[in-house]
Order: sequence, then structure tokens, then C-alpha cells
Amino acid sequence: MQISKQQIEFTYERIQKHIRKTPCIVSGNGTFGLKYSISLKLEHLQHSGSFKARGAFNSLLNSRIPEAGVTAASGGNHGAAVACAAHALGLTAKIFVPEISNPAKVDKIRSFGADLHIEGATYADAAALCSQYQAQTGAIDIHPYDAIDTINGQGTVALEWAEQNPDLNTILVAVGGGGLAAGIASYYADTPTKIIAVEPTGSCSLHAALKAGEPVDVELNSIAANALGAKRCGTYPFEVASKHIAQSVLVEDDAILAAQRCLWREMQLVVEPGGATALAALISGAYKPADGERVGVLLCGGNAELIQVNDALKGR
Amino acid sequence: MQISKQQIEFTYERIQKHIRKTPCIVSGNGTFGLKYSISLKLEHLQHSGSFKARGAFNSLLNSRIPEAGVTAASGGNHGAAVACAAHALGLTAKIFVPEISNPAKVDKIRSFGADLHIEGATYADAAALCSQYQAQTGAIDIHPYDAIDTINGQGTVALEWAEQNPDLNTILVAVGGGGLAAGIASYYADTPTKIIAVEPTGSCSLHAALKAGEPVDVELNSIAANALGAKRCGTYPFEVASKHIAQSVLVEDDAILAAQRCLWREMQLVVEPGGATALAALISGAYKPADGERVGVLLCGGNAELIQVNDALKGR
Repeated sequence: MQISKQQIEFTYERIQKHIRKTPCIVSGNGTFGLKYSISLKLEHLQHSGSFKARGAFNSLLNSRIPEAGVTAASGGNHGAAVACAAHALGLTAKIFVPEISNPAKVDKIRSFGADLHIEGATYADAAALCSQYQAQTGAIDIHPYDAIDTINGQGTVALEWAEQNPDLNTILVAVGGGGLAAGIASYYADTPTKIIAVEPTGSCSLHAALKAGEPVDVELNSIAANALGAKRCGTYPFEVASKHIAQSVLVEDDAILAAQRCLWREMQLVVEPGGATALAALISGAYKPADGERVGVLLCGGNAELIQVNDALKGR
Repeated sequence: MQISKQQIEFTYERIQKHIRKTPCIVSGNGTFGLKYSISLKLEHLQHSGSFKARGAFNSLLNSRIPEAGVTAASGGNHGAAVACAAHALGLTAKIFVPEISNPAKVDKIRSFGADLHIEGATYADAAALCSQYQAQTGAIDIHPYDAIDTINGQGTVALEWAEQNPDLNTILVAVGGGGLAAGIASYYADTPTKIIAVEPTGSCSLHAALKAGEPVDVELNSIAANALGAKRCGTYPFEVASKHIAQSVLVEDDAILAAQRCLWREMQLVVEPGGATALAALISGAYKPADGERVGVLLCGGNAELIQVNDALKGR
């Protein structure tokens, strides 16, 4: 199997010196209005502001890079990650993002010196432009979720976490195109740890795919769409998720905003809406742990607009 | 000695189940424009948003609490910490803060159900009102920095850190009244680890005291004054610092704002100005580590106004 615990271990050796080992923190009973304590993995503190740096470094380090350099299409975080990895490795990067990408992400991509192209309404539009560019130039196209190197890279977050919190029963992770969830689920595949996939009701490509028995197109309408807004779940992620995801749950945008507010007010953590989505499943009750269940929540992205977080505090 | 490594170990046993063990993260070479990597201890993720929760829990757990309950004067963070600890232990709290306390701190104090009194221009004004209240009611007054239980409590941050990063040569810590620095310096007193005290030029009670040979009054005019703005360094902190602080350095407000910006842009961490002050010493060059020196920086407070951080990004 090209995606597996062993492949993720090899991947970690490859990328380890390039990424941050992100820490975990225990919330404490009562935090977030929950009677139990949870472990949060602060992956939003990763280089470039999300877990995507893991897959980006792995993809670049594991490829022969053509003269035309690297290209990627992205809601923003994958673009920032590819730009970050390309910068660190001395490569040129051309990044395509849709107009919904937020200024924090756009600024981050630029800060890494990448050539940025903003066009189209959704990630799918940016992806079409990126494919065109790839065909014309021969640049290598790093897929944000439907590629083996990407998924094994994202899986390294689970390798770290298993060492940091070896006793977790359950891990909640947000899903966009499914690369992160697939990497994590592959790492934990032969263990008792359950992986719960959490998606916004307005951006639920994996939930729809699991229901249909295959990846299908979904409508996108969520506050987290600039991070989780894949129109269709990846084929590799779908294959892994069908076998190794214990449960797929949905949360409303209001629950995501509530989780974002709680993270700031009670833990001084700023995350983007996509980064608060997994926690929203606990706060809203979409996922209810059993008594004594040891739960981990991945905070996957921190490229928030501070103004948006401030507005969320005021309930706007 | 009433403040010592051993006392701090006893203190940790007392407060451990009430506080968060805050994590560390390594920044990575190049982050913050520094050629070296540093370890950041994310103490701003502590309950109530700062290290002050450690001293507050210790003070309350180690005292007989009178019927009138607990009182404290504070720039904001100590008030939030006492309110937090009182709430957790089922006690009533009356907190005095000056008008410079920011809304984030005021909201946090209220969120713990404390009775809040806002009056006066500086911490010293709030402290006078608090003393008056204490004398009238018999409530127990928890001092923010010049008390043994407070200092031993703050010192537990060093106990955790020494376990997490046993190889640090140097630790940079921001100073207000000196309780945190005294706790940390006491813990590391008989080790080769150097403690560097960092203060804003416009709020430098320890620097002035070390120069004068005794605590003296200073003028307060710094963006970090609502956290670090002690008019006069504490007598216990001064005694400890005279012996165990390796160096006292000053940073300008502009350097503090630059550090605050870097923490958000490059690590997705939001801290208040006081929380960015220790890092400012590295970014500004006020403290220059030797080649190979292993440096730790404490992020001590996270009760920022998001609007202030956003404005700092725009250089306002």
C-alpha cells in the first residue's frame, strides 16, 4: 500500500527537519462548557499556518523538480504551504487561489515570495487554471489532497500525536478534500483509536461521498469554505475513509463560529473557521463521547482574519 | 528560604491539577528573522490567559479564606487569574483594576463571575482602593507580585520548562513587578541557566531598582503598561533578582509591536504587548545570544485586543 503507517514513518524522516513539531495542550475540565477535558493538537502553529506544510514539503522533497518550478491550486492554505516549502528549498512557485481566499492567506503566500494568481469563485476554478498552467509550462503540480505524497505528509501529524498522547481513544479532524483525514486514518488504521471526520453542512464532500458510495459533487456554502471547500472528495481519501473512518459528522456554521469564539475566550487561541470545525462537533453535541472516552481534537489551520474573529466574538 | 526550588516543587504538587501544563514549540531557523531557532513556552494559553493563574491558585489554596472572600488589585491579568481561581474553588472575589485595563481583561474577569471595580489611572491607584476594601471587609488580599505564595506559584512555570527543555542556556522573561522573573530565577538559581529580565523602556521598575540598589518609583508610559506597569518593583522580587538575574535589558514599544506582529504572522500566535516583550529583546537585538546558545522565550500573556493586534499589523 502506498499510503500506510510505514510510509508515513518514512515520510517523517524525510520532512522532520523542515517542519515544526506542533505541541498538544489539555483543555481542563469545564473548558468549552464540556464536562471532560480534551487534548488539542496545535497544528495551526505549523509553518505557513496549517498542516498543509507537511504534505507540501513531502511532495517537493520526493519529486524531481522541473525547470519551470512548482505550481499549486488552493483555497489558500495549501498555496501558502507550497509557497513556504518552495521558498525553504530554493524553488520558484506559482500559486492559483480563488477570490474567496482571505487576505491573511494571500499575504502569507506573497510573504514566501511566490507568484500569486487570484481568479475564479471556487477552489475548482483555481484548479482549472493551475492545470492549464501546468500543461503549458511543465511545472510540477502539487495536489492539495488527492495525491499519495500529500496524504503521507499530512499523516505525519498522527505520528507525532500518537507519541505525544498515546492513550487517545478518539480523534476529531476536519475534512475538506480529505487528505488530512486520510493520512491520520491510515496511520491509526490498525489501532483501536477511532477517527471522526467533521465537516460543515455547507461543505461536506466526504459525507456525501460516503452516502453515495463514491465521490460526488457537492454545493459549497460555508464560512469554512476557503479552507474546507472541496467540491468533490479525493479518490484516495475516499478509498481510505471508506475503510478507516469510524464516523462522519456534520456541523452548522454557527457551531463553527461558537467553537472559534470559545478557543479565543477560554484558551487564547486564534484559529480560522476550518481550524475550529473539529471542536465544533463536541461543543454542538454532533459528536458525544462516552464517559471516560479520551478525545483529541486537531486544530488544523490558523490563517484567520483577526477582524473576522473579532466580529465572531460580537456574534456578527 | 521561603522562595526556592524546593518550595516551588511543593507548590507544583499543590496547584498541578488546577492549572494547564503549557506546551513549548520550537520556532525553526529563520523564523522572526533570527538565524537561530528558539523554544517558546506558550504560557499565554494558561487558564485566565497568563501565568498569573499559577500564583493565584497557590495563594488561595495555601490560605485560610475569610468569609469576606478574596480581593486583588491588578492591571488586569492578575485580576483575571484571581477571579478564575476563586471561581474554580467556589470563593467570592472582588477585583480592582485601573482604567487602562483592556476590555479583553475586563471581560475575562467578569466571565469568572467576580465583582469588578474599575477606577484610577494606574495599577497603584487600583491597589490603594483594594487595600481600603481589604481593611474594611477583612477579605484576603492576593498581591500580584510581592508575596511569597505568588512568586512560588509563578516559579512553577520554570519547573515545567526545565522538564520540557532541559538543555536551555538562557531564558528571556518579561518583567512588570518582578514576581514571574523572581519565581523563575529562584527555580534555576543553582543551575547554569541564565535568566534575562526584559522590560519596556517606559515601564522598567526592575531595571531602575537594580541601578538604584533598591526599589524606586518609575514613570509608566508603555503599550505594555496594562500588564507590566508596576510603579515600583516588589521587595521580594528585587531581592531575588539582585542575586539571580543575569542581565536586565530594555526594549522600545516599537520593538514590542514588531514582536507581536511576527508572532502572529509567522507562528499564528496572538499575545498581548506584555506577552511579546521578552521576544522583542531578541528581534531588536537588545539581547544577542552567542553562537550555539540555546534560548527560551516565555510568552507570558495572551489577553490581547484583537483590534489592537490587527492595527499593529498595519503599523498603526
